[in-house]
Amino acid sequence: MSILIVGTVAFDAIETPFGKTEKIIGGAATYISLSSSFFTKNLNLVSVVGEDFPETAIEMLKTHNVCTKGLQIKSGEKTFFWSGKYHDDMNTRDTLDTQLNVLENFDPTVPQEYQNSNYLMLGNLMPSVQKKVLDQMKKRPKLVVLDTMNFWMDHFLEDLKESLKQVDVLTINDEEARQLSGEHSLVKSAKLILEMGPKYLIIKKGEHGALLFNHNEVFFAPALPIDDVLDPTGAGDSFAGGFIGYLEKTEDISFENMKRAVIHGSAMASFCVEKFGTQRLEELSYEDVEARLKQFIDLVRFDISLEN
Amino acid sequence: MSILIVGTVAFDAIETPFGKTEKIIGGAATYISLSSSFFTKNLNLVSVVGEDFPETAIEMLKTHNVCTKGLQIKSGEKTFFWSGKYHDDMNTRDTLDTQLNVLENFDPTVPQEYQNSNYLMLGNLMPSVQKKVLDQMKKRPKLVVLDTMNFWMDHFLEDLKESLKQVDVLTINDEEARQLSGEHSLVKSAKLILEMGPKYLIIKKGEHGALLFNHNEVFFAPALPIDDVLDPTGAGDSFAGGFIGYLEKTEDISFENMKRAVIHGSAMASFCVEKFGTQRLEELSYEDVEARLKQFIDLVRFDISLEN
Repeated sequence: MSILIVGTVAFDAIETPFGKTEKIIGGAATYISLSSSFFTKNLNLVSVVGEDFPETAIEMLKTHNVCTKGLQIKSGEKTFFWSGKYHDDMNTRDTLDTQLNVLENFDPTVPQEYQNSNYLMLGNLMPSVQKKVLDQMKKRPKLVVLDTMNFWMDHFLEDLKESLKQVDVLTINDEEARQLSGEHSLVKSAKLILEMGPKYLIIKKGEHGALLFNHNEVFFAPALPIDDVLDPTGAGDSFAGGFIGYLEKTEDISFENMKRAVIHGSAMASFCVEKFGTQRLEELSYEDVEARLKQFIDLVRFDISLEN
Repeated sequence: MSILIVGTVAFDAIETPFGKTEKIIGGAATYISLSSSFFTKNLNLVSVVGEDFPETAIEMLKTHNVCTKGLQIKSGEKTFFWSGKYHDDMNTRDTLDTQLNVLENFDPTVPQEYQNSNYLMLGNLMPSVQKKVLDQMKKRPKLVVLDTMNFWMDHFLEDLKESLKQVDVLTINDEEARQLSGEHSLVKSAKLILEMGPKYLIIKKGEHGALLFNHNEVFFAPALPIDDVLDPTGAGDSFAGGFIGYLEKTEDISFENMKRAVIHGSAMASFCVEKFGTQRLEELSYEDVEARLKQFIDLVRFDISLEN
């Protein structure tokens, strides 16, 4: 059993109402990997960085059970860089700078020993790159999860729709669900998106929780009410990492277990936003995770006996 | 056991992306009463209308177990009228017209047989009017719930703060919680507002559910994902009605039972928005309510066993 994680490994510079960082380690695959690592030791990473990427950051991933054999290091090139500033409500942000660098010509190569991974997490990337990874798998993974964003819907919609036919779980946020479906109602959106291919759809609503849909059922997981969200960067990726990490650990992809996985994902996202960047995920213990899960249980548990 | 409900009984004219009504029956106390009536037969109403208010509407309230002895009918005067138009997202609206009419000089009189009601629901009204009702109670009710809105915070903040010292449960929406506390974080808002007097705070987040706080605990109830919200008018009042109606029925105001009451309130609100005005609440059966409660249970139920 193992998870193959594909996505960006990057530098971020983040500004929120609570502070501002220099260049720090970020990227979808970084958050996904760190978050999954609390549930499984079998993590394979496919990504790309430049020669400016610090060896210490790669070591940090390795100590979190991440195999970095699939992490290309391009000499003479620079790591993908993103800089953004969050507005006061923390739900919207402006991109201040994007330097694609190594991402511009990223041609993912899946090492032979990764090609049998039975869980595949396609982190947010150009859809054609996500597809190249899927095509290199020796056998169809037990579960394929794909995360994407509005940018790809704007510019590469047909590629994205092609990929959607091959994935089991799609994770997007509420605005993206509305854009992809053309429907305002999330219930109607979900129906339309599930017709595009995915068997399951997770709609992430940030501080308002997440919805898990299949063709017949819906499950809602709240976000934990938090004193202060310091930095929302990576919350969605931490969610995805907790989700797929828990599924790999339990080897059960039933809807009932996906509910539990969504709660685990929500717990990991709730940690992520408490500090800037990957800091909180890096310092976390599994005891912290269990205590947080208990908070989620207490948050939504009620006991109603119906008369009929 | 009985509930005294104070609030507006009114005419509304509503426009949403899904349609438009003529003058229909509305008002906070109308929605609260109808919603509570599914849980208790002991409903006392204190409000005011003009001579233009139809006898059929009063009969409709009576058939829903509402005693209208405390409903003043002012001859030669007109009923409070509100008209509004909801934006495409249904979360924001413009007020098109407000005619206070009988509300301008509303002096509530609590009939003697109401003065021992042990549950008091102070629906959204001018804080000084809410207080006049509280002052007429012979003994302190077992539970006092107060609903209010940003308008009163803008113009009668000191009166409102005076009332807050005397209530058990305050229900407001997220923006109002932020305004009242001056804090963006809802967790921090709740702490500050609970210091103003209420023992419990319910923050209503519309389609994003509701939070129940006391000094030590927090509970989250989702909103039911609905195909189309046709008309959000009265949803908050339907919530309040289900909440206090269930508490009166069960005679238990513990935090555990308040959780159940919040779920019952959410269920009633989810019905309210399915049709325009009070239509859905009027036609509802208790079997419908039970079926909806089961949907809420299924929506959030998950089963995680922690290792430690």
